[in-house]
Amino acid sequence: MAYDHHLRLPSGFRFAGCYCGIKKNTAAKDLTLIVADQPAVAAGVYTQNHVVAAPVLNCRAKTPTATARAVVVNSGNANACTGARGAEDAQRMCATVAAQLGDDCRPEDVLVMSTGVIGHFLPMHKVEAGIATAAGQLSATAECFEQAADGILTTDIARKVGYRTLELNGETISIVGMAKGAGMIGPNMATMLGCLMTDAQLDPARAQQMLARVANRSFNNISVEGHTSTNDSLLLLASGASSGPLDEEGLSAFETALTELAIELAKQIPTDGEGAKHLIEVCVRGAASDREARQISLAVASSNLVKTAVAGNDPNWGRIVSAAGYAGPTLDLPHLALSLNGTPLFQAGEPVAFDAGEVSQSIRDNSVTHIDLVVGVGGGTCTHWTSDLTVEYVRFNSEYTT
Amino acid sequence: MAYDHHLRLPSGFRFAGCYCGIKKNTAAKDLTLIVADQPAVAAGVYTQNHVVAAPVLNCRAKTPTATARAVVVNSGNANACTGARGAEDAQRMCATVAAQLGDDCRPEDVLVMSTGVIGHFLPMHKVEAGIATAAGQLSATAECFEQAADGILTTDIARKVGYRTLELNGETISIVGMAKGAGMIGPNMATMLGCLMTDAQLDPARAQQMLARVANRSFNNISVEGHTSTNDSLLLLASGASSGPLDEEGLSAFETALTELAIELAKQIPTDGEGAKHLIEVCVRGAASDREARQISLAVASSNLVKTAVAGNDPNWGRIVSAAGYAGPTLDLPHLALSLNGTPLFQAGEPVAFDAGEVSQSIRDNSVTHIDLVVGVGGGTCTHWTSDLTVEYVRFNSEYTT
Repeated sequence: MAYDHHLRLPSGFRFAGCYCGIKKNTAAKDLTLIVADQPAVAAGVYTQNHVVAAPVLNCRAKTPTATARAVVVNSGNANACTGARGAEDAQRMCATVAAQLGDDCRPEDVLVMSTGVIGHFLPMHKVEAGIATAAGQLSATAECFEQAADGILTTDIARKVGYRTLELNGETISIVGMAKGAGMIGPNMATMLGCLMTDAQLDPARAQQMLARVANRSFNNISVEGHTSTNDSLLLLASGASSGPLDEEGLSAFETALTELAIELAKQIPTDGEGAKHLIEVCVRGAASDREARQISLAVASSNLVKTAVAGNDPNWGRIVSAAGYAGPTLDLPHLALSLNGTPLFQAGEPVAFDAGEVSQSIRDNSVTHIDLVVGVGGGTCTHWTSDLTVEYVRFNSEYTT
Repeated sequence: MAYDHHLRLPSGFRFAGCYCGIKKNTAAKDLTLIVADQPAVAAGVYTQNHVVAAPVLNCRAKTPTATARAVVVNSGNANACTGARGAEDAQRMCATVAAQLGDDCRPEDVLVMSTGVIGHFLPMHKVEAGIATAAGQLSATAECFEQAADGILTTDIARKVGYRTLELNGETISIVGMAKGAGMIGPNMATMLGCLMTDAQLDPARAQQMLARVANRSFNNISVEGHTSTNDSLLLLASGASSGPLDEEGLSAFETALTELAIELAKQIPTDGEGAKHLIEVCVRGAASDREARQISLAVASSNLVKTAVAGNDPNWGRIVSAAGYAGPTLDLPHLALSLNGTPLFQAGEPVAFDAGEVSQSIRDNSVTHIDLVVGVGGGTCTHWTSDLTVEYVRFNSEYTT
């Protein structure tokens, strides 16, 4: 994203990102430390994969909490499928951070995330040295925030950050976020990591409920190849440094801002998908329920046929209608209406005459492809974001050898 | 397949395949007619897509039946998403066949299948002329059977046929089959069509139950990109010309042969997938139930990450374990065992040391890649077959423009 240097970081947090030697590229960063100056509220949502990486198990047992002090993240190694030793390593990362931060920080106050290759043990001597280095660099500057955002990336091309400020009862509240992932993000494993930080005051239970709702409208609605990873994690930290308790109206305004920020971050992931030429936004309306709308938008966004058609600038509406048809919910063709980049292609069970060359040109000319599907039977809506499927994507994911 | 000219066709059927002008390639065939000399038993299983092509709706209403006289198939146009006019066209194909065959064949005795591009009306004058041409060429020769098998293909590279003979109570029973499809089969739409023909005597209800079981072990277990089409259809015709009623033992032997033939035909589909370099066989054993085994084998077989890894000859077991993990069923990592082409890669929750170069070479050297996953909690099994995901596949499906 176009990074705005007038960013106002939320009060109460310090950041660091450094290179500790997990990645081969010495110019990259592979270790991030985020520290809350005072015990913060933390909530988390995690992968639904039954094969769960050690750091996810570690983190999941700790959130929600009112005593979070730090988040440590390594990239380049997922610490997944690593058995008992992996669990010990994740715990040791937390203990090392706690030791660095001093007596009042316990290992259970430290959250941990990992991303990268599956099935390799962490090089713990490097990780521990990296934590010490990062602890020495912690600062509340935009530069350190950027370095922390870089430390969670793997094969991402672009840094993924975003922020919002809002005024509530005369107080200025900041929210910033960082994320990583490019769907099928690397030669190894798609992992989505995200961390949202705010200086608003939230209680743990509310923060947890809010984060779950926010994830269901943002990070849970992106797909590159539908491969839920072993490590997906999204955290929310609230320092409370800039607000008193929020009333219902304030919470609602805060959640709106948080949702907007999460969607902005989430959309950066398929935009940065390997080889992606288009971000595809699949918007389903008029389904019998939100759940059915979600099934349909996910099926369309996950279809290789749809994704290759967009890569080829081809308004191949038959692939879209057919994907909607196998999504699960019953479809009533006479009520269905499909448009692509605003042009109606299919309505009332029959094709609409349209200028295929013109629609193809509109796909070619725009980095975002809008697919709008009205089911026409109810009020259910859902939007999914995905990337197109290009030759470069397959090349990247097949020519690499572990 | 290597076609065996000693094929014994089942008694009671005649075949024809011709070119009627639906496809641009005048050297191809695009219309197939299969005729039963006497009323035959017919069963059918059809797509589970909610967007159902006109010929599927037509056919589904007719099977099972004891009075089937013919199957007409056109390729190059799916007659899908074509509304009321599409339904009339499908019915007109049946009526045209009935008229060609004479007074004792009614339109309701004719089954119809279509495959090809979605959303275009059939050129009925060409189709009707083609039916007349095919009716004039009907014969019970291997050559005409081959031409009929060619007439149902779209972008398939290879003709897909198979046969079995079995001796039951001193009677020789033949089964032959033809199929088409390459998963994501064309620039337009994946469609699987299959037609199995036998001279055994079956009753309609038993034939229907048997075909459903057979499909669940063969054609329902192949995937190229998981896109269930609007037109998928599998028919079984039984003339009864070579047997009396089968007893339970005979039915069981017949079903075994039919299942073997169906699996042989089904495997030809991903083998012929666009750009495919490997057929991938995903065999799951030891799941809590067959249903859970199916969920797991389907998730692994549908994973772009797994399919690109095989294309790259990469024994990337993390992608396989992770795909199993998001399939749905709870996985107990300590009981999980994964091997690839016979080499154990992951066991008891931890990586197994293996020679990656050697396993990579075995993928490279063999056209079939065997993925064996033992879940270790029960007796459920399922096998899925898929193709690898190559650069050529994406090129084919994105560079074409409708």
